[in-house]
Amino acid sequence: MTGTTLDDYTDRYARRVRGMTASEIRALFAVASRPEVVSLAGGAPYIAALPLDAVGEMLGRLGSEQGATTLQYGIGQGTLELRERICEVMSLSGIDAACGASPEDVVVTVGGQQALDLVARLFLDPGDVVLAEGPTYVGALGVFQAAQAQVVHVPMDEDGLVPEALEAAIAELTRAGRRVKFLYTIPTYQNPTGVTLTEARRERVLDICERAGLLVVEDDPYGQLGFEGDAPAPLRARRRDGVFYLSTFSKTFAPGLRVGWILAPHAVRDKLVIASEAQILCPSAYAQSAVATYLGTMPWRQQLKVYREVYRERRDALLDALADLMPEGTSWTSPGGGLFVWATLPDGLDSKAMMPRAVAARVAYVPGTGFFADGTGGGHMRLNFSFPPPERIREGVRRLAGVMEQEIATRRVFGAVRGEGPRRGAGSDTPGPALA
Amino acid sequence: MTGTTLDDYTDRYARRVRGMTASEIRALFAVASRPEVVSLAGGAPYIAALPLDAVGEMLGRLGSEQGATTLQYGIGQGTLELRERICEVMSLSGIDAACGASPEDVVVTVGGQQALDLVARLFLDPGDVVLAEGPTYVGALGVFQAAQAQVVHVPMDEDGLVPEALEAAIAELTRAGRRVKFLYTIPTYQNPTGVTLTEARRERVLDICERAGLLVVEDDPYGQLGFEGDAPAPLRARRRDGVFYLSTFSKTFAPGLRVGWILAPHAVRDKLVIASEAQILCPSAYAQSAVATYLGTMPWRQQLKVYREVYRERRDALLDALADLMPEGTSWTSPGGGLFVWATLPDGLDSKAMMPRAVAARVAYVPGTGFFADGTGGGHMRLNFSFPPPERIREGVRRLAGVMEQEIATRRVFGAVRGEGPRRGAGSDTPGPALA
Repeated sequence: MTGTTLDDYTDRYARRVRGMTASEIRALFAVASRPEVVSLAGGAPYIAALPLDAVGEMLGRLGSEQGATTLQYGIGQGTLELRERICEVMSLSGIDAACGASPEDVVVTVGGQQALDLVARLFLDPGDVVLAEGPTYVGALGVFQAAQAQVVHVPMDEDGLVPEALEAAIAELTRAGRRVKFLYTIPTYQNPTGVTLTEARRERVLDICERAGLLVVEDDPYGQLGFEGDAPAPLRARRRDGVFYLSTFSKTFAPGLRVGWILAPHAVRDKLVIASEAQILCPSAYAQSAVATYLGTMPWRQQLKVYREVYRERRDALLDALADLMPEGTSWTSPGGGLFVWATLPDGLDSKAMMPRAVAARVAYVPGTGFFADGTGGGHMRLNFSFPPPERIREGVRRLAGVMEQEIATRRVFGAVRGEGPRRGAGSDTPGPALA
Repeated sequence: MTGTTLDDYTDRYARRVRGMTASEIRALFAVASRPEVVSLAGGAPYIAALPLDAVGEMLGRLGSEQGATTLQYGIGQGTLELRERICEVMSLSGIDAACGASPEDVVVTVGGQQALDLVARLFLDPGDVVLAEGPTYVGALGVFQAAQAQVVHVPMDEDGLVPEALEAAIAELTRAGRRVKFLYTIPTYQNPTGVTLTEARRERVLDICERAGLLVVEDDPYGQLGFEGDAPAPLRARRRDGVFYLSTFSKTFAPGLRVGWILAPHAVRDKLVIASEAQILCPSAYAQSAVATYLGTMPWRQQLKVYREVYRERRDALLDALADLMPEGTSWTSPGGGLFVWATLPDGLDSKAMMPRAVAARVAYVPGTGFFADGTGGGHMRLNFSFPPPERIREGVRRLAGVMEQEIATRRVFGAVRGEGPRRGAGSDTPGPALA
């Protein structure tokens, strides 16, 4: 087979990723990782806050003293030891035995991403609809796109997903004869907005999904990273059935180990394990031992507090800098936890078009377009505060404000941002008045 | 949503794994792992042969000294450092820069399983046909089943896949209007047979696939575990295009880290990365560093020799025990490397039906039925020699022979094996005269 034939073959057959292009975020990380750039683009935890000497010592012992087990194959569902520890972690958030959480129904995954992909693999057929917040996690959009499903965004405001909008979306899709498979939601310290679904709305959202016979896929990577007391209990803590609960140790311990999990309704637990075995055979025994040993022998609750303190200080630095430096007409969310702030630009600015100029000014962010399936979102940007230290955050905002002032000035002179065609989505796609 | 509704929902929608049941091998491992059972069922490397103290020390340093990188997120394709090391490893087998192998075209995966799943995800649509050796790797059958593709087995003999049978299968499927996507093959020390495709046949198989416009997916986990000199060069070393080369460090270093790779045709490398990002975001930075550091600082070529020596001794123990103890009418392969021997039972015995009695006699194997998509293979079994020490192997064969003698005696008395309905596949499904 010649190279040309292979291209033909690929064009003809590689339909599952046809149209899939490298995500904006991936392309961005290449430039954003240059040391001179202040990156507000990432989503990385501040690993240096871990006690790396102690973690290293633990990791070493797992190899030298338990290598015959930790370096060997394991079982597809994940070790019982880790699944029991995961249940302890979930019980902190109110997901406990009383609401039916059991190690039996936990499936260990390769980070939260595989958890999401397994649920998609289990339920999505081409042409299906998934409901999700608008904006939502970019990696979820990748999963749903790979499954050839369509994402319909439900608007949010400062209280999270708008229940009336959810009801309306379900009604409209039902009338149109579309098959809606589930609601995908990040109710707490959402990525990318930092917004948390309020207590009252949690019950309403669950009721609406229950009435419509819709599963809920609850993604909760940030729930234990609250800065001002506890977040409202997860959706899974309120319903035994109908909710898949997904989480990860990537934000509370370390993403480099790639350990996440699904707490699945019992009826589908086995199917998830089989699907995972087909995908990866088994999760890393070593990484599972590392997380289980960390949870079993090291002060992980204390470490959660450390992360919360570091991130609260950095969130404050970001919010202060935004208040001090952003041009008039800019607004932003005030997250109670998590890693992100969602900013809305002055009318007429386009975060995607502005990116090259921002990078030239040595600051990076993720344009809002990355978080919508339909390419809207250009009037917004996601700003990360977990990784850069406070003074770098302020410097980044200063550079960003300078770029925006320049854009605004250029726009005033030319009536539009230089060198661009009609801009899609800026201004008109605000996800709700309170966020806009 | 009540539990009942969820069941309905699952029945209605979880079609991708509908019909998927826990593999025979998984169920088997639960009993086979009891200490009193001699397990010839596994496929695990003998991890105790690693210098665990030194490996542990290295793993510890990766955490304490490089934790800020190794415990952090990485990129979807995998680190350049590891991809360069992988190219060094492949060059030992003749896959080098001269035949177009480059770190640019390597995608790091979660073991060989994810490599296979990504290729399937890229190319397979429901109803497609995949050609594969009969028997073939059980995990590949899981992947193809999850993709709702049909596996058509091509018979093997002691020289590997039979080229004439491959040609005939392609012709017949083409006549029937079926869409054949690729040939999946393990040409060297195959799982489950241990058989190696001969030098002459490698060229013929490649020519046949090239003429038919068929991609080749070459799975090579065992190629560097030869006991009697080097194996014939991999298919990928003979063709720049049209061959996906898949391998893993699970057999040559340690499966617990879950690190494998694909060397992909350049035209599809990016699509594989995007598909992998949708599935797992990125492979473990820690596990990648562990493998790259192992390859960069420890005597891994020497360790390969250690593994080969250990496995050669155990293969000899297995072959000797089979020759000394097996009842008349039993035959088996004589692998030049790898982890497995494929045994063919005396006419009338059924390896699947016999399993409970074997486990009662404290010996386990994998029934041949696990390696065929159509449930045939009951006249065969896979025997592993990499994990149990030689004296345990001999004891296992002694127990197995006892069970078989008993089956034969029972069969003589009753005319059929006691307590069974019509047996499917035994005897009639031998994969080729030389293996039968």
